[in-house]
Amino acid sequence: MERLTLDVNGCFDPAAEGLDRGDLAGVAAAALGAFDGFQARREKGELGFADLPADAATADATERLAKDLGGRFENLLVLGIGGSSLGGRAIVSALAHPFHNLLPRERRGAMRIFFPDNSDPATFEALLGTLDLADTCFATVTKSGGTAETMSQHLALRARCIARFGEEGYRERCVLVTDPAKGALREIARAEGLRALPVPANVGGRFSALSAVGLLPAAAAGVDVAELLAGASAMEARCRTGDVLGNPALLYAAALHLMDRRRGRRIHVLMPYADALRDTGDWFVQLWAESLGKRPDVGPTPFRAVGATDQHSSLQLMVEGPQDKVVTLVRVASPRADLSLSVPEGYRRFGEIAYLDGHTMGELLEAERRATDAALRKAGRPTISITLPRLDARAMGELLMLLELATAYAGGLYGVNAFDQPGVEAGKRYAQGLLGRPGFEQYRDELAGAAKPDPALVLA
Amino acid sequence: MERLTLDVNGCFDPAAEGLDRGDLAGVAAAALGAFDGFQARREKGELGFADLPADAATADATERLAKDLGGRFENLLVLGIGGSSLGGRAIVSALAHPFHNLLPRERRGAMRIFFPDNSDPATFEALLGTLDLADTCFATVTKSGGTAETMSQHLALRARCIARFGEEGYRERCVLVTDPAKGALREIARAEGLRALPVPANVGGRFSALSAVGLLPAAAAGVDVAELLAGASAMEARCRTGDVLGNPALLYAAALHLMDRRRGRRIHVLMPYADALRDTGDWFVQLWAESLGKRPDVGPTPFRAVGATDQHSSLQLMVEGPQDKVVTLVRVASPRADLSLSVPEGYRRFGEIAYLDGHTMGELLEAERRATDAALRKAGRPTISITLPRLDARAMGELLMLLELATAYAGGLYGVNAFDQPGVEAGKRYAQGLLGRPGFEQYRDELAGAAKPDPALVLA
Repeated sequence: MERLTLDVNGCFDPAAEGLDRGDLAGVAAAALGAFDGFQARREKGELGFADLPADAATADATERLAKDLGGRFENLLVLGIGGSSLGGRAIVSALAHPFHNLLPRERRGAMRIFFPDNSDPATFEALLGTLDLADTCFATVTKSGGTAETMSQHLALRARCIARFGEEGYRERCVLVTDPAKGALREIARAEGLRALPVPANVGGRFSALSAVGLLPAAAAGVDVAELLAGASAMEARCRTGDVLGNPALLYAAALHLMDRRRGRRIHVLMPYADALRDTGDWFVQLWAESLGKRPDVGPTPFRAVGATDQHSSLQLMVEGPQDKVVTLVRVASPRADLSLSVPEGYRRFGEIAYLDGHTMGELLEAERRATDAALRKAGRPTISITLPRLDARAMGELLMLLELATAYAGGLYGVNAFDQPGVEAGKRYAQGLLGRPGFEQYRDELAGAAKPDPALVLA
Repeated sequence: MERLTLDVNGCFDPAAEGLDRGDLAGVAAAALGAFDGFQARREKGELGFADLPADAATADATERLAKDLGGRFENLLVLGIGGSSLGGRAIVSALAHPFHNLLPRERRGAMRIFFPDNSDPATFEALLGTLDLADTCFATVTKSGGTAETMSQHLALRARCIARFGEEGYRERCVLVTDPAKGALREIARAEGLRALPVPANVGGRFSALSAVGLLPAAAAGVDVAELLAGASAMEARCRTGDVLGNPALLYAAALHLMDRRRGRRIHVLMPYADALRDTGDWFVQLWAESLGKRPDVGPTPFRAVGATDQHSSLQLMVEGPQDKVVTLVRVASPRADLSLSVPEGYRRFGEIAYLDGHTMGELLEAERRATDAALRKAGRPTISITLPRLDARAMGELLMLLELATAYAGGLYGVNAFDQPGVEAGKRYAQGLLGRPGFEQYRDELAGAAKPDPALVLA
């Protein structure tokens, strides 16, 4: 069976101050250490994401729940933020029809899925005003069970459902995805008799794409969840070696880490040549930034681009700007659809158009990807290439697992814990202080006591 | 009338190695020089974007054309890439209903707008399969008149329209936005008798949001174009001084430039607390990256975030990672809609939820913005605040003009030409070589002659 290919030749170009095999040999021991460290934590049961593809029971329960909801409702709202939204969104937008929510029911063959991932009242109110609530259900997704943005949406929607359909109508419409044992949402599930799917205690939000967090919206959108997990499982199996030249996730992590530490390239661009992978870029940004951004001396910046679109945007910066980037180009070898181009007689005198005749739009896109790779390398900018045989559930599972494992290994190489996010706690405390949470008065007072702004620096 | 406010106090915190008034005094002469240099090029007629708000004739013609199309068709496809797409998309998503394309015609009151901005055949074929072509028109937007991605879409759609509706049906459905005199598309407009709107010769693609490029989709989506231009005009008027403490765009550019050059902060984050400004972030990424990314020693990396969503993603990196970022937070003072939160009895024992009672979702979002600003500053990370009184056409016009002028001034401060993009030409030549454009054989041959990849670095 064809599978994902990783090619790091674009980082090893001697003409471009690339890495050499000596660099790779030098990092081999550290890579092995990162691999062993991850395996040890995994075997101790601390880290569960790589075992998700084997969790058939949760996949089955999720598919059954999605089927039940899909039989009764037209719309599913996924109330979640960050890792509780990005994974599901990435999977659905990669694998569902590009205009899924616009298709009539009979062509769609699955629920419409919405990801209102922000506590922006303008969006949420507009969404509730757009959908028929009678035909709408929602999944409240928070591992901890108390995420403020998500709970604010839950409260608003719960109140509307109860007002309109009563307690039973609310219970039919609301499902929860949360920790299997702990947290407010789990207690609420028990108290209110709501159906709830688990996020294993050892799976953090940003590594939860292949848990019920991502699988529920995927299944509801008609994605082949079994194939998705099979692809992830196959990638996980490919990555069971600590040999940096045998484990694609380890090689990817090592190449990016070397480029950062040895060449000062700490902006890591993910540039798929496929619109459907745009949201996968946003998912990767969270994964890489939140996992590795831990110290003033550690924290590569992930940057999301889409080819060919960003050739008309950030590519200029990548080609001629600072030597601080590595660009990963993702190719889909066989596009799902293609379009033949024929240049009519009246257009043939324009050289910049005539050559398109007889080609397909897919050939144009692939020529642009090859050309961009070559132009970057000629300008001394390293690239990495990932090729998916096609953009289907299996390949998407491979890609997600590749990037998750690479992130875990990169944490080991950088010497940081890739699985926490202590830096966001201060902001949460300030917000709770401002909104009057008992016990958080000191944070409100601290803000009230801040130095007065200099009015000369405010242009109003 | 309330207007946009810029506050750079968050860059001047002595506890956080911030700038001081001496830095600002030191950059005043360079800022004045950047201002004067821009004004001189503007007065010579080389740079036209700041004069677009005064071009009532084009605005009128655009509105008339949009009205005519809207009276006959349900859907408008904007065929354009980069600057030919991002500006219109930013305006429409900021100002139209958040689920505009999903609304039924009677509630929408305007055309559905689609921006297929890539030569991805999977997306384009799916879009054509989703819409009723009889009810669809399209605007082909390319300043040069020969952009390959856009022309490939034009060719495909032209052929389908002619096959189905004949030449006259194609002429009814297709309008062009291009250079007023030059280029293939202008000649095609004449030869085929197509209606065409101008992009002034002295307005480059990424500065064209307020030309017909952005105004046509905006008007077709029901945006108040006159107010948009009035807001832009008001900001342009505010920026007619070379005094860095009197011109908000100049102060913004100077603060970011100083943070880059004096503090090594060359990642510039734009983080609006409004979903509707998400696409404005993508627009800014192109503007800042393509305008300033010109030399190995010049090229800040723009980074798009959205609050509160990215508090659960890249914020961790911003707070604890490398000291290489400046974060601009954008606030909308009065949200368009709000939602009251009431915490039911059964939820009140959960401290992390109970405090939401009696607040609104808008208050939560604003508390999070204030809290994030404070947390960043406490961690020694500089911030800049932009406040829009509300998110309406006028404020959007102010914001776009602020960022465009800031980009122009930043070009002056960095000593680069902000209005070209030489770095993307090599890739175009390779792509044309690969697709067999006569005269470009050498580029194809160069790729064919590239060194063979090392198979050990390919994990397949």
